[in-house]
Amino acid sequence: MDLKESRSIAEKLFAEIRELTFDGVGVSRESYGARESATADYLRRFAADAGFAVRADRAGNLVIGFPDAPADAPAVWCGSHIDSVPQGGNYDGLAGVVAGLLCLLEQQRSGVRSPLPLQVLGFRGEESAWFGKAYIGSSALLGKLDADDLALRQRDTGETLGACMQQVGADMEAIRAGQALFDPQTVRAFLELHIEQGPVMEARKLPVAIVSGIRGNIRHNGVQCIGASGHSGAIPRWLRRDAMFAVADLIMRLDEHWSVLLERGTDLVVTTGMLSTNTAEHATSRIPGHVKFSFEVRSKSIDTLEAFYQLMRAECTAISRERQVRFEFDRRLLSSPATMDPQLCNLLSKVCAGKNIPFEVIPSGAGHDASMFANAGIPSSMIFVRNENGSHNPDEAMDLDDFMLGVDVLDRAIHEIR
Amino acid sequence: MDLKESRSIAEKLFAEIRELTFDGVGVSRESYGARESATADYLRRFAADAGFAVRADRAGNLVIGFPDAPADAPAVWCGSHIDSVPQGGNYDGLAGVVAGLLCLLEQQRSGVRSPLPLQVLGFRGEESAWFGKAYIGSSALLGKLDADDLALRQRDTGETLGACMQQVGADMEAIRAGQALFDPQTVRAFLELHIEQGPVMEARKLPVAIVSGIRGNIRHNGVQCIGASGHSGAIPRWLRRDAMFAVADLIMRLDEHWSVLLERGTDLVVTTGMLSTNTAEHATSRIPGHVKFSFEVRSKSIDTLEAFYQLMRAECTAISRERQVRFEFDRRLLSSPATMDPQLCNLLSKVCAGKNIPFEVIPSGAGHDASMFANAGIPSSMIFVRNENGSHNPDEAMDLDDFMLGVDVLDRAIHEIR
Repeated sequence: MDLKESRSIAEKLFAEIRELTFDGVGVSRESYGARESATADYLRRFAADAGFAVRADRAGNLVIGFPDAPADAPAVWCGSHIDSVPQGGNYDGLAGVVAGLLCLLEQQRSGVRSPLPLQVLGFRGEESAWFGKAYIGSSALLGKLDADDLALRQRDTGETLGACMQQVGADMEAIRAGQALFDPQTVRAFLELHIEQGPVMEARKLPVAIVSGIRGNIRHNGVQCIGASGHSGAIPRWLRRDAMFAVADLIMRLDEHWSVLLERGTDLVVTTGMLSTNTAEHATSRIPGHVKFSFEVRSKSIDTLEAFYQLMRAECTAISRERQVRFEFDRRLLSSPATMDPQLCNLLSKVCAGKNIPFEVIPSGAGHDASMFANAGIPSSMIFVRNENGSHNPDEAMDLDDFMLGVDVLDRAIHEIR
Repeated sequence: MDLKESRSIAEKLFAEIRELTFDGVGVSRESYGARESATADYLRRFAADAGFAVRADRAGNLVIGFPDAPADAPAVWCGSHIDSVPQGGNYDGLAGVVAGLLCLLEQQRSGVRSPLPLQVLGFRGEESAWFGKAYIGSSALLGKLDADDLALRQRDTGETLGACMQQVGADMEAIRAGQALFDPQTVRAFLELHIEQGPVMEARKLPVAIVSGIRGNIRHNGVQCIGASGHSGAIPRWLRRDAMFAVADLIMRLDEHWSVLLERGTDLVVTTGMLSTNTAEHATSRIPGHVKFSFEVRSKSIDTLEAFYQLMRAECTAISRERQVRFEFDRRLLSSPATMDPQLCNLLSKVCAGKNIPFEVIPSGAGHDASMFANAGIPSSMIFVRNENGSHNPDEAMDLDDFMLGVDVLDRAIHEIR
């Protein structure tokens, strides 16, 4: 691979797309929104100018390949997502799409095509931040969006997911019918390069890693705790129905259970990413009668997910009794944990070893489109690239040298898949 | 007193002012804002039509009296505030102004004037909900607003308190200079009728009560807890700097201290009325790096206030170390506890006893303008009227029969003050 030439193309793509989608703090590429579409348009123009065939699939995702690639023959899919969280980082998702594009360009430059044609995918709607649901673009492709999903509303505009998907040209009739929009038999492998979103590789000085499996999660985007508002000076402790103290109690109980389970070696993270008293009525001197919050538990084990979820519900019941409040739950969302294909993991490991690149096989704490394909029976695997400061924030920092090592591994592996 | 006639006037005033300031849920009379001024204008017209002299004092508060009352002679002041919290109740504050007005009307009807002329006051800006500071109208009168106070911003419009006070005609030069805007020697007594804002009288079946003292408080309207944002799936517990878990931890520590202190008989309430993760960046799948919240402690004892405040700061320091976050505190606000005048309390008690009205002498958990006057050396006392469902919410419910008992006591007491 011509690493120097590829690196300078990557630099240009990352810089220009960052500028296009900068929000003043980080990048914001709203799922099925203006800046996600701007990113897709930019990549479409770039690839078309380079001589590739570019199309949108029936779910509105971006698909790039050689113009002479046979339409329905078995292929290798490679890609990631083009959206981002609000005020997010530039590489989360985009790195995997750029990586695939560099592999295509390398095949074009060298004249050496991979045994199976390479298709580069840029998925829409992977981040749950906008509609409260993750992996929308890949779910749509697999026929896994239901009516409740399509009725979800965009956090800022209030538009439904269904309306937004229609605006980018998705085949809503087929999606509503729950049809798979492609033939899974035609995808021999799905490969996704992604920045690591945790601190493990940085700590262990690994430029790349191979992903063994992906954590699943159970979520509620908006649980409501309802007590009774009242004057903060005039209601004694024993007569209070303070929704804020009740939710703080819940969080601390979950924190204690979490600590105990970690000591037993359980794989688990717990997060309350959003919480607010009711801004229409809250005041320093008013006991909050209403608190809304999100709940998320993640684990590699579906049993752990279910067990911790039931623990949370049991604590809510106990707190309701003790603090005279009640909890109202919105729709429960489950993303199942996924196992990556052992053969593909072996292949990626061998390529790393052959190139003397230090690597390890590690699990992914974050979820990815790859989990959707893996759980649909398509052999899938992921390459992680080292990244500082985590992700879902503007400070993420991937070294382009590390990225190019990852692209080099990806390129080599694609040539080995038959 | 002609209770039947007075009761029908009270009904009309409460109904019409409620309609004037209804916000769809409760009433909203913004301190120094449109609906507070609408309330003042309504009362001004009503009193002028009834033949009284109506003026604004130098702080913009409403003052109503007989046109022939000597300007600088010793007087009895009677009143309460005309603003409300957002989505608040109709009687919190307004009841005391209407009560004073009914006493004036009774003196006019009967032709029997009180020994000292009665002045009815309608204070602006008593509720802290709008500018984050309470008792603004009475503080201004007493020369107790400083430059920091005047720079406070209205929660919705962002306008400064100084600008808003100027718009209602306050003497900003004198207020900025910290001058008292009246001669405290001319006020022989300050009497305030107010709904009870807690559940005590309802529980003890008391239609009226006499207030012995008023709780003070220490507040922060906007403490910030700063940790580090990050991807919820990828950062293990030990590397998290989760601002939401940190603040939940703080609230539960304060709750524990509170429980222990109550067992020792300490007078104390603790409230976090406002709390939110950062809406610009929060998401279900993002560890919150930033939480903003209010803190309030109230007690009859200034020593308890200070001790609990220091305990809170100490816990913040401990949590900062344990959870790798930091706390940033905005301005600390102190309202001192106040003792009501024993002679006035005796007088009110005697009047109740003489009329065979069941009553008790109880402390006020909530703060009131009366505490400002008491702490400035003006003999002050309060009559509480029973009220269901607390206050600072649209469900407050005062029985007009109870109210009329309170007005009757007030009217009788005013005639006894020399």
